Amino acid sequence: MTRAAIVGGGVIGGGWAARFLLNGWDVAVFDPDRQAERKIGEVLENARRALPMLYETRLPVEGALSFADSIEAAVDGADYVQESVPEVLDLKREVYRRIERVNHDAVVGSSTSGFKPSDLGSGLETAGRLIVAHPFNPVYLLPLVELVGPEAAKDRAAGVLRSLGMYPLTVRAEIDAHIADRLLEAVWREALWLVNDGVATTEEIDAAIRMGFGLRWAQMGLFETYRIAGGEGGMAHFVRQFGPALKWPWTKLTDVPELTDDLVERIGQQSDAQSGVLSIRELERLRDRNLVAILRALKREGSAAGQVIADHETALPAPDRDGVPLVTVERMIPSDWTDYNGHMNESRYGQIWSDAADAVMAHVGAGQDYVARGLSYFTVETVTKFLAETHAGEEVRCETRVSEGAGKKVGLFHEMKRVADGETLATCAQLLIHVSLETRRSCAPEPQVLAQVEAFAKAHAQ
Amino acid sequence: MTRAAIVGGGVIGGGWAARFLLNGWDVAVFDPDRQAERKIGEVLENARRALPMLYETRLPVEGALSFADSIEAAVDGADYVQESVPEVLDLKREVYRRIERVNHDAVVGSSTSGFKPSDLGSGLETAGRLIVAHPFNPVYLLPLVELVGPEAAKDRAAGVLRSLGMYPLTVRAEIDAHIADRLLEAVWREALWLVNDGVATTEEIDAAIRMGFGLRWAQMGLFETYRIAGGEGGMAHFVRQFGPALKWPWTKLTDVPELTDDLVERIGQQSDAQSGVLSIRELERLRDRNLVAILRALKREGSAAGQVIADHETALPAPDRDGVPLVTVERMIPSDWTDYNGHMNESRYGQIWSDAADAVMAHVGAGQDYVARGLSYFTVETVTKFLAETHAGEEVRCETRVSEGAGKKVGLFHEMKRVADGETLATCAQLLIHVSLETRRSCAPEPQVLAQVEAFAKAHAQ
Repeated sequence: MTRAAIVGGGVIGGGWAARFLLNGWDVAVFDPDRQAERKIGEVLENARRALPMLYETRLPVEGALSFADSIEAAVDGADYVQESVPEVLDLKREVYRRIERVNHDAVVGSSTSGFKPSDLGSGLETAGRLIVAHPFNPVYLLPLVELVGPEAAKDRAAGVLRSLGMYPLTVRAEIDAHIADRLLEAVWREALWLVNDGVATTEEIDAAIRMGFGLRWAQMGLFETYRIAGGEGGMAHFVRQFGPALKWPWTKLTDVPELTDDLVERIGQQSDAQSGVLSIRELERLRDRNLVAILRALKREGSAAGQVIADHETALPAPDRDGVPLVTVERMIPSDWTDYNGHMNESRYGQIWSDAADAVMAHVGAGQDYVARGLSYFTVETVTKFLAETHAGEEVRCETRVSEGAGKKVGLFHEMKRVADGETLATCAQLLIHVSLETRRSCAPEPQVLAQVEAFAKAHAQ
Repeated sequence: MTRAAIVGGGVIGGGWAARFLLNGWDVAVFDPDRQAERKIGEVLENARRALPMLYETRLPVEGALSFADSIEAAVDGADYVQESVPEVLDLKREVYRRIERVNHDAVVGSSTSGFKPSDLGSGLETAGRLIVAHPFNPVYLLPLVELVGPEAAKDRAAGVLRSLGMYPLTVRAEIDAHIADRLLEAVWREALWLVNDGVATTEEIDAAIRMGFGLRWAQMGLFETYRIAGGEGGMAHFVRQFGPALKWPWTKLTDVPELTDDLVERIGQQSDAQSGVLSIRELERLRDRNLVAILRALKREGSAAGQVIADHETALPAPDRDGVPLVTVERMIPSDWTDYNGHMNESRYGQIWSDAADAVMAHVGAGQDYVARGLSYFTVETVTKFLAETHAGEEVRCETRVSEGAGKKVGLFHEMKRVADGETLATCAQLLIHVSLETRRSCAPEPQVLAQVEAFAKAHAQ
């Protein structure tokens, strides 16, 4: 499957287009808006800068983006179709009718927040392959997609979405607003009351979230957090103990504050005071840098959304490592690697050398399995020369020669180059010693590993 | 102010004790529970492992912890009192009556989730200095504290809490459950319905949060996120556009699901299936590692809760840098610096050398102000020798000599030592060149900087 059709090209449709394109799919977009090409271009520009930063290896070669003159032209021959037109039922159903004229096989996902699959597809040929595939903005960074609808279609879609690095969450029952938006609406409603009643400003409410429970929810969600609060008594104990508090009159649940002009203006003014110093584009960049940093942090811990990134990374194609020198690293420099001088901090070059050595180790049969058997190579010395500045967003390649390989020793010589122009940015001579992870002392490598190391050293000496 | 009294020593009281102790305060605890010492010890063990990891410098020397036989003995002479006893109004008021027998000056903060200061203090002498200071678990890592009550007392408390690295949020009006718990209750209630109705399991609801909007909320909260969604039209436009959706019947707002035995058991079983493979202690450690990683990521970006950490770090005492060699870094190795070999990754040694060089630069007058004037030193070569393994949680010290200092060149020799036993873990010879940040080329340093560099090189050669 290599071609996706995107019907509706706003922020959400653009985010979908970016997810597919940056994972190597060709994408055809249909949107009657004359501004669609510009709008999708802006989303794509953000996505190109952010999504590749999540990974320690390069993404596939970007697919081709085209704009079609009609829905039919966009979806003809597409392997996956995603609809993100405005939330008007008749409009959406007209889109599906046009799809089924020319495409009889692809799963059709709808980005709808509110409609159920049975509303969307009743009586249509597409009904059997029409699902809700509800993403979250920014679609190119947040993994969650809620899936609702026919089982077989959900399964097919889940495979596609996982290959894009997303997290498909199957919703067990058709329900208005699926899962996440119900929770969001509950908070949104309560927050509007707090502003309406003058208890808190928009900035104070945001602080109450991001200085506190927002940090918990980014990694554990609601129930796992409360499970910890319940202690060894367990979750049922916690619910019994704190259940009664639900009856207390803490929230204004029944009512919706009337959106008077005064309230709307007040929210607008408070939001301007809070965030108006930055444009929306600047806020998007800030959000994306933060999300990249949080997702990378969770990836290092192998937790929550970080595990989704890690799994996707494992499935990405490794560099071709059969040449001389070996290509050991191909990646984009992420924004969290830069320092106050505006360039990549010297310590992060060490990450490149460390990753490059890992790649060599995997190649000589001393990778994760070998480590699990209690053997590894430790670095004992590095000599790094910093030749030119490296910046966030640049793609780099590391080329490595095995300069020494005998007994317990492996010597590597790494050259890190900017992909755009081939300039050598830094070099490193790295000496590693084979160790037992049990005794933490040096020892001889297993024979087959030694043989590989020697073979590389010989080949690279020529 | 250097002594805090903690009345009530559960998970919350223990978290408060840890915040104070690890920031150098002495702490006296009163709790009639015979298990209090053990329980607080467990919280403190977690805190000692996590809180210092947020900073690139060491925290103050830990204060002394003592357990008092009575409330009076605990609070006598205390500069700050925090009450965290169970949510029973009469019990809390009895605590305040005992406090005011012996302590007539300290601010008294209550960790209450539900009571208002006027409920707590009416008719008591303490009323004028009694506030709600409502923290969030884990208290030693999450910055948020909601403050409600008399202005002068809130101001005094805010100063104390900021010095502990917390984020005091003043709530403008007395309201049941303050701000954050109202939002939490709205979500909790809706989540219970989703489980009750069989729409989603506890694990699926947690996934819907942590794979999606939880990541947004950890950094921007609710309103700033929606401001972006509203685009250039602004926040008022967004509210007008999406306001009507609030009238849709998406949430079961009015009702509370009855907590039947069946529902409670179902939640307990789902939670066991989701998280039961880990004990509560293991979940706490996982949570803390994730929070450390997220907070450190946000700190690097200077965003949200990360800015609170960065500000606190600036206020922490710098190492004494007047000796020979210079002590340039004193810190704990954070958990996100380790790799699959179970020790600190080689790249992170580079962070120590980079930070050590920054400390030298600040010392010779080439710190942030100098960089702002467009001048800096760039590292051009490092030779690192890795002598022993370094592990997360270990405290290390970097000692630095200026080995060369003439013209554009500065040579530094760093030794990183484990504080516990003084063992040298790694060394680095680092060569830096003075550059213009405008031309990105080498140039002569300003005379006063050069003079300092030369003086250090001379002193360190002896």
